[in-house]
Amino acid sequence: MVVPKLQIALDSDSTAEAISVLNKVKDLIDVVETGTILICRDGLNAVRDLRAMAPDKIVLADVKCADAGTKFGKSCKDAGADWMTCINAATVPTMSNAQKEIEVQVELYEGWDDKDRMQEWLDHGIHQVVYHQSRDAKFAGQKWSEKDVENVKNLIQMGFKVSVTGGVHPEILKLFKGVPVYTFIAGRAIRGAEDPRAVAKQFKDEINRIWA
Amino acid sequence: MVVPKLQIALDSDSTAEAISVLNKVKDLIDVVETGTILICRDGLNAVRDLRAMAPDKIVLADVKCADAGTKFGKSCKDAGADWMTCINAATVPTMSNAQKEIEVQVELYEGWDDKDRMQEWLDHGIHQVVYHQSRDAKFAGQKWSEKDVENVKNLIQMGFKVSVTGGVHPEILKLFKGVPVYTFIAGRAIRGAEDPRAVAKQFKDEINRIWA
Repeated sequence: MVVPKLQIALDSDSTAEAISVLNKVKDLIDVVETGTILICRDGLNAVRDLRAMAPDKIVLADVKCADAGTKFGKSCKDAGADWMTCINAATVPTMSNAQKEIEVQVELYEGWDDKDRMQEWLDHGIHQVVYHQSRDAKFAGQKWSEKDVENVKNLIQMGFKVSVTGGVHPEILKLFKGVPVYTFIAGRAIRGAEDPRAVAKQFKDEINRIWA
Repeated sequence: MVVPKLQIALDSDSTAEAISVLNKVKDLIDVVETGTILICRDGLNAVRDLRAMAPDKIVLADVKCADAGTKFGKSCKDAGADWMTCINAATVPTMSNAQKEIEVQVELYEGWDDKDRMQEWLDHGIHQVVYHQSRDAKFAGQKWSEKDVENVKNLIQMGFKVSVTGGVHPEILKLFKGVPVYTFIAGRAIRGAEDPRAVAKQFKDEINRIWA
């Protein structure tokens, strides 16, 4: 079975903070996510700086594009990103235009569960989705459950490479045992830890224990 | 009947470009939109600069927030925005957290047409929505129609202040005659014109002719 990648979500308040965290964990992670909040604050320069720091990693620009797919795709690519996110509420032409410029991941927020639309994404060459617990919903008490694992399995069955995010801690990985998750995305669990490197190592070890 | 506001969508490639356009039309418009693409490129400094240019106008940060409502709301407010957008795919806690910080507009993209969820928005104090034609869908040939006018009327009926955007030109305003649209949002029609000021004036005159 393919071993899931580990992605760090750098939803930091400044590029400097993001660089500081990345510096501690870089060799342990596979995908560097320039977070939506960070891009909102510092613009695509944040992507440029993280790209410069991690030339050999996959860099994701988490712009959650809802419109103007070509423009967003080109801008993110020019800034050095390999992947870019679209929000599930974007139209198929938006996603498809973006996908012509850069590898697109669709983030699954409210209203995502529409098989016909998802099939259209696949038909337009979009093969990555991000299964989510929203940060705010999570703060409101939502927890990872068997239902989430079922949803992820069904998405993989449909043909998607599925990344999993939202309150992902090392302890929840075992819930997905036997499921070929594409990437686990951890933000606060690593960024917010006293020892970010130790937690990144825990993720990596747990991924290897379960999947390798 | 209340006269609709005129909003300029500054989806420019740089803050300098946005400033240049705004400089030409400022006295004719009511709402200054810092576009998603512009914020993506230059970060919230774009909002700060446009706020500084237009201290007496409503400034909107079109961040299309999908998550982390409190953080986005605070960041946009700190940058000087009066309003901020959320995407319809955001959860109610996200929108509601943002609304506690700043006036929220929900942008209606795919999957928006769910009356129960919209009622929840109203119940959480969210009273503004943006009725949309996606830029990419529009490029694919979509046009404003009676169906759109009906949708806008129904949203107003539900209790929303409705802004209208996506390929809005002076000629389409008369379609909405008799409908208390909150704001008409024009981007390319003004920004892309040889004489942006003349087109902004056409919008303003047409709005006054129909509603004042």
